[in-house]
Amino acid sequence: MGKKKQVKRNSQKAGLLPGTLIHIGERKLETVRITVIDYDENSFQEKQVTKIEDCFEFKNTPMVTWINIDGLHNTEIIEKIGKHYDIHPLVLEDILHTGQRAKFEDHEKYIFLVLMMLRFEDDTQTVISEQVSLVLGANYVISFQEDIGDVFEQIRDRIRNAKGRIRKMGPDYLMYSLLDAIVDSYFVILEKLGEEIELMEEDLLRNPTEKTLQQIHNFKREIIYLRKSIWPLRELINGIEHSESDLIQDSTGAYLRDVYDHTIQVIDTVESFRDIVSGMLDIYLSSISNRMNAVMKVLTIIATIFIPLTFIAGVYGMNFENMPELRLWWAYPALWLVMIILAGVMLYYFKRKKWL
Amino acid sequence: MGKKKQVKRNSQKAGLLPGTLIHIGERKLETVRITVIDYDENSFQEKQVTKIEDCFEFKNTPMVTWINIDGLHNTEIIEKIGKHYDIHPLVLEDILHTGQRAKFEDHEKYIFLVLMMLRFEDDTQTVISEQVSLVLGANYVISFQEDIGDVFEQIRDRIRNAKGRIRKMGPDYLMYSLLDAIVDSYFVILEKLGEEIELMEEDLLRNPTEKTLQQIHNFKREIIYLRKSIWPLRELINGIEHSESDLIQDSTGAYLRDVYDHTIQVIDTVESFRDIVSGMLDIYLSSISNRMNAVMKVLTIIATIFIPLTFIAGVYGMNFENMPELRLWWAYPALWLVMIILAGVMLYYFKRKKWL
Amino acid sequence: MGKKKQVKRNSQKAGLLPGTLIHIGERKLETVRITVIDYDENSFQEKQVTKIEDCFEFKNTPMVTWINIDGLHNTEIIEKIGKHYDIHPLVLEDILHTGQRAKFEDHEKYIFLVLMMLRFEDDTQTVISEQVSLVLGANYVISFQEDIGDVFEQIRDRIRNAKGRIRKMGPDYLMYSLLDAIVDSYFVILEKLGEEIELMEEDLLRNPTEKTLQQIHNFKREIIYLRKSIWPLRELINGIEHSESDLIQDSTGAYLRDVYDHTIQVIDTVESFRDIVSGMLDIYLSSISNRMNAVMKVLTIIATIFIPLTFIAGVYGMNFENMPELRLWWAYPALWLVMIILAGVMLYYFKRKKWL
Amino acid sequence: MGKKKQVKRNSQKAGLLPGTLIHIGERKLETVRITVIDYDENSFQEKQVTKIEDCFEFKNTPMVTWINIDGLHNTEIIEKIGKHYDIHPLVLEDILHTGQRAKFEDHEKYIFLVLMMLRFEDDTQTVISEQVSLVLGANYVISFQEDIGDVFEQIRDRIRNAKGRIRKMGPDYLMYSLLDAIVDSYFVILEKLGEEIELMEEDLLRNPTEKTLQQIHNFKREIIYLRKSIWPLRELINGIEHSESDLIQDSTGAYLRDVYDHTIQVIDTVESFRDIVSGMLDIYLSSISNRMNAVMKVLTIIATIFIPLTFIAGVYGMNFENMPELRLWWAYPALWLVMIILAGVMLYYFKRKKWL
Amino acid sequence: MGKKKQVKRNSQKAGLLPGTLIHIGERKLETVRITVIDYDENSFQEKQVTKIEDCFEFKNTPMVTWINIDGLHNTEIIEKIGKHYDIHPLVLEDILHTGQRAKFEDHEKYIFLVLMMLRFEDDTQTVISEQVSLVLGANYVISFQEDIGDVFEQIRDRIRNAKGRIRKMGPDYLMYSLLDAIVDSYFVILEKLGEEIELMEEDLLRNPTEKTLQQIHNFKREIIYLRKSIWPLRELINGIEHSESDLIQDSTGAYLRDVYDHTIQVIDTVESFRDIVSGMLDIYLSSISNRMNAVMKVLTIIATIFIPLTFIAGVYGMNFENMPELRLWWAYPALWLVMIILAGVMLYYFKRKKWL
Repeated sequence: MGKKKQVKRNSQKAGLLPGTLIHIGERKLETVRITVIDYDENSFQEKQVTKIEDCFEFKNTPMVTWINIDGLHNTEIIEKIGKHYDIHPLVLEDILHTGQRAKFEDHEKYIFLVLMMLRFEDDTQTVISEQVSLVLGANYVISFQEDIGDVFEQIRDRIRNAKGRIRKMGPDYLMYSLLDAIVDSYFVILEKLGEEIELMEEDLLRNPTEKTLQQIHNFKREIIYLRKSIWPLRELINGIEHSESDLIQDSTGAYLRDVYDHTIQVIDTVESFRDIVSGMLDIYLSSISNRMNAVMKVLTIIATIFIPLTFIAGVYGMNFENMPELRLWWAYPALWLVMIILAGVMLYYFKRKKWL
Repeated sequence: MGKKKQVKRNSQKAGLLPGTLIHIGERKLETVRITVIDYDENSFQEKQVTKIEDCFEFKNTPMVTWINIDGLHNTEIIEKIGKHYDIHPLVLEDILHTGQRAKFEDHEKYIFLVLMMLRFEDDTQTVISEQVSLVLGANYVISFQEDIGDVFEQIRDRIRNAKGRIRKMGPDYLMYSLLDAIVDSYFVILEKLGEEIELMEEDLLRNPTEKTLQQIHNFKREIIYLRKSIWPLRELINGIEHSESDLIQDSTGAYLRDVYDHTIQVIDTVESFRDIVSGMLDIYLSSISNRMNAVMKVLTIIATIFIPLTFIAGVYGMNFENMPELRLWWAYPALWLVMIILAGVMLYYFKRKKWL
Repeated sequence: MGKKKQVKRNSQKAGLLPGTLIHIGERKLETVRITVIDYDENSFQEKQVTKIEDCFEFKNTPMVTWINIDGLHNTEIIEKIGKHYDIHPLVLEDILHTGQRAKFEDHEKYIFLVLMMLRFEDDTQTVISEQVSLVLGANYVISFQEDIGDVFEQIRDRIRNAKGRIRKMGPDYLMYSLLDAIVDSYFVILEKLGEEIELMEEDLLRNPTEKTLQQIHNFKREIIYLRKSIWPLRELINGIEHSESDLIQDSTGAYLRDVYDHTIQVIDTVESFRDIVSGMLDIYLSSISNRMNAVMKVLTIIATIFIPLTFIAGVYGMNFENMPELRLWWAYPALWLVMIILAGVMLYYFKRKKWL
Repeated sequence: MGKKKQVKRNSQKAGLLPGTLIHIGERKLETVRITVIDYDENSFQEKQVTKIEDCFEFKNTPMVTWINIDGLHNTEIIEKIGKHYDIHPLVLEDILHTGQRAKFEDHEKYIFLVLMMLRFEDDTQTVISEQVSLVLGANYVISFQEDIGDVFEQIRDRIRNAKGRIRKMGPDYLMYSLLDAIVDSYFVILEKLGEEIELMEEDLLRNPTEKTLQQIHNFKREIIYLRKSIWPLRELINGIEHSESDLIQDSTGAYLRDVYDHTIQVIDTVESFRDIVSGMLDIYLSSISNRMNAVMKVLTIIATIFIPLTFIAGVYGMNFENMPELRLWWAYPALWLVMIILAGVMLYYFKRKKWL
Repeated sequence: MGKKKQVKRNSQKAGLLPGTLIHIGERKLETVRITVIDYDENSFQEKQVTKIEDCFEFKNTPMVTWINIDGLHNTEIIEKIGKHYDIHPLVLEDILHTGQRAKFEDHEKYIFLVLMMLRFEDDTQTVISEQVSLVLGANYVISFQEDIGDVFEQIRDRIRNAKGRIRKMGPDYLMYSLLDAIVDSYFVILEKLGEEIELMEEDLLRNPTEKTLQQIHNFKREIIYLRKSIWPLRELINGIEHSESDLIQDSTGAYLRDVYDHTIQVIDTVESFRDIVSGMLDIYLSSISNRMNAVMKVLTIIATIFIPLTFIAGVYGMNFENMPELRLWWAYPALWLVMIILAGVMLYYFKRKKWL
């Protein structure tokens, strides 16, 4: 996951004019896709436009307009929107420079949100992380994404089919719905991580290998990254909840509190994961020690039994002329007896010491 | 204990309409059981109803009504109650989606609490964790549980037999009693954990095995889970205590402060357990090292004594023609003497080094 | 020390009516001992009463009355006092249920304090921990202890002999004196622990054994327990200092601040101990590793020198017919020379590697 | 990086009069270089002066004046500026004594900032750290640096070429631009560190050596030092943002908030690095253990197989007269068979134990 | 350094009357030395008095009087000063009971400070720690020290020679100067510690021995002790800065803020040291592991090569009659060849495994 990327992006920016509109991030998309959904309780319209100017007609209608922009590399489009909707240049800069810390800014005439959307793509089994910026105005929501594909499909369905209360509510409820969808998507990621933890724990106690170590290390890094992305969310949602902006109606407050509760739950879970993973490394070390111990014991037992016996055999392999034992007929079987008893005594000693 | 479950539940919800009533959690019960207890200082009535509508008659009596619902999968019942008692859809959602973080919400006409009830079942020797939601209104308390079986039996007894002051007090005192029972139940769990710690500690110092390691790891996870459940409780009770809701009378304040003190004590104990357990792993590692050390010592002593002796024996097993020592009649006994002295010196050296 | 006990007591209580007066704790004493000290600047009276009613006459005198009760199992006495002095049932419950978290409650007509008294008994070399509850009223202080024996003897002496300003001051100064005596007693315990640390440290670096490990572990647990007892004290004394109760005169403020400073010092010292002890375990592990290393070195040196030599001896012990070396008269002494040189080279190598 | 230096400097100062102007730090530069840039929206002038008095003419023009001073050892110059611009002696002291903690001071007539500039020099591959002090007055900014070379070149370009809004704004915007350039430069350092981490991680898991250990240790120290430099920045920028100084215009607020966000991001990244590096040491230890384990296994297998076999060979090397086996013609090949089977059984056992 | 001492002192005090004047601490000095410096902008007088009463004449002059008292065991003197300057008994107690936590108390007519002075004595190479108490009144400063010798000599020089602004300022500036001298002295200690760290680090990576371990442990304890002494200083200086006492003039505020900044810097450095030292132990453990690993490798290589060869030699040392190989003339040289090839193969294997 992209911690390093984020730093790189910022260092690319170093030295640019504040407010310069240059897209920092990978160009994920060929052409920018602009989708407009315009609705109120009774009517609904959805269309994909090619020129950004086609959106502007919706600005003055009393209906709620949701403009979604996939792809940030065409800075001209962003600039045009910025001019038309009177958005501060630094906000536009934040939209384009992906890798922002989640934040909330109240610019009186509009509210600006930027946060991370995490999506688990089933076919490739990877986590896609994308910066989503939201601008909420009096009768519109503009959402900026780096790439096509998001977690908002069910919201679109609800608008299309007039399910739930979304068509009856204002743009602040739409913004809440988008936020809620993003926070909900974290739970999916957490669940995947939870499953990974469980798999690792099994490996850990049964068969810890270097691969397990690498997995724990990677997992820890992911948690650190996730934590860094999610902690600022708390402040963000708290900020919206307690803002006195006229753009957010009182009735939406209860819903925002609900998202806030979910965010706290996500944070709690990430913290628990952190605790568990930091414990895992200790377990790993202990398991490795245990394993080494087991190996050592075998070596010790074998060596301890045979080293003295080998010495005895060595003694009677000496070539001294005057070794009277050698000539006794019972000496050889007697020696065998002695050696077997010696081995037996040692085995008994190890047994008593619980080394066997 | 169910950390993972909780995450899963939330990810199941992902994409649903906010306020959609779907029970998320295991269906623990076949049929929903509804019990009503209606009382004031002088009269008392308890009955089990089959239709939720049978409860509604109690709404307008001046007596305190306690409706307890075991089983959450029949969303229709919850919806009916919600409609009748005018409860916000998001509250109903929280009741149904088990795995909530403990919280307190003041909705003016009623107060909503959700928290975790932990119960130790003696026959199966397991901990049962269940989400309990409480709705406190002007003259009623509604409690929602996932399953039959709870820690409230003694409260019911007190109401039935008019023991203590419960029959003389309002529904806020009933809510306090339920809270108190839940917090008290944590002490039972903590005691069990305390006993487990003591057992582990003995194992730890005397006979640390891989099983001990696994136990410590599991224990640590349980503590992490417990901590996550209990910390928000502090906020919850603090919230009730400092709320300015008319539903809570001043006289109940002292009781709530008492529950608060108990909660702090529970948190303190969990933190102590955490500290102790995190120390245990270090002790485990040390014990393992000690054990390995002991094994190493034996190997070293045996090897160090016999390796040189075996070399000597090897020398006089060589077949050179010109080895004058071999022909001396006293050479063999002299060699034995040398070897015994050598072994003795080495033993003395190890003794002085405190390796024996 | 009694962490587990405390949990047990609370779990015994689970399910009881709030305000039920049952003594939870070990019955340490056969009969309850009640002592009354009544004094003002000019007169002084001390007596031991058998019936609690004998104390009540002092209530209406303008003199300061100190009622001390040793033994909590006779709940009837506590109940009578409660009734006579109009004490809230939950306060009485806290007095009886030992194992409370230190706390301060302002009940307008009286102030309630509960905290832990630690006493080092010289003859048995053990730490006695006892819950002390204090009730401060307009002209009285009632102190409840679990057992005979306390740290208040010097306060009694001062009252008897009119030493210092105690006889000139009100009951709030008496309460302060009791608090001060308890906090001072912590220093005695800390000094004992400090000495223990010093002993352990010597063991640690010179001769670490499994016993040392156990000592560190026990010490750590004691520190955890102590910490849990002492932290809430800070809040407690802070609470009294900043309370606006009429029962505490302004002139006592400076004294309370003094106790507060001492408490902070106790906490600081406990935290330092915690830091030191947590470092000790690392030192222990390092020492063990060092020791193992030393053992390993000896083994390696002996084995590394003799294994090749033994091999050479083995070669010339072979029985091949065609081994021309065997027949050379200088072969045997030459071999000795070779072997000695080989051993010398290896010793030099080990010396250079700093293994010797 | 210079943690020790910083302490040394302060101890050099110990005992000096407060406000004594002595430059503490390495004399990095031969002669002091003074550069003046004077601009407004329409005109622009840049010149290098040799006498500080030549700057003073700019004081009374309405244009924005930026005086940059490279080199701090000529205390006379600093003193003259201090006198002319009426700067408090303690501020001058702070400018000269490099190794200050980043801070912000509002002296009503001017604002004083001191912070650390980090610069990565590509040719030498080293990080240059320099203290930068900024004094912002009504129509001027004075910047003090220890040495020639900084991260401000692009700001100078923008002023020269009237790029962006800098020429239209006041001196507070210039100060913001300098701050922004410094914070941006941290990202470059962080990126370098991020790359170093990645390299170390590869080493760590594949081929951990003592050099890796030293690298981790050095890296950790750098992080500790960086952290110490960057944390106070948060306070600093927060201080400017919330100061009510007339010197900072409202329009600059949004820009300062932007720098603040970047600072938080830098801090977050440093904290993540800290977490990752602290985990690396554990990984290192684990890798070392793993490696040792692998070595041990080989030793154990070889020794365990051959020690018993060597014993058997030793037995039949004994010289007893009565050893009937020696005379059997099939004894020798049979023994080989026995020995091969024995070795095979042991290999099978090790395979099953997963030691091979 | 004296952590234990401090505890001991307090336990000595246990049971004494609050406000009892007994000097707790080592009697470091035979006779008490009293020095008076009386000055204003124009005149200056310094004398050493034998009777404390000789100081009292200065009380009513408008000049600034600095009474310095070295030695605390003569409680009579302290008591007389206390009476004459109207100082609260608890303050006198704090002056005498050394080992206090640094604190600031505003008693309206005077300000009381107590803190730790650390001094590095060059001849004995030891750190001298001494409690310094300061009482600041309307026109006087009284300083109490345990022993002769302090860090104030340069302040005395400045007063004597009218250097800087000290002679022009009031007693609050004198108090600031004393504080500043004490905080500056910490930097000297930190520099020494910094050098020690550097030395330890070299040892750590090159040649870690048990002595290094002991050094790290001692260093850690010193840091813990230092930290405990310095943390409360922050509060102390913050307290003075924000106090509304008339005794401190506004002009002194900037100077106090300067001391505050230095204190923060000291704290930051101590925290960094703590971080570095806690990392050192890990490095130590790793180095020890590395070393052990190196030793193990040599053992493994030697043993692994020679154990099989010795076995082969053993085989041909057997005395079976039917061993046809023994009679082949080329068997012996062939065996040598086999053994050399075997050794070579093993060496190659170890090389490939990077064990060599």
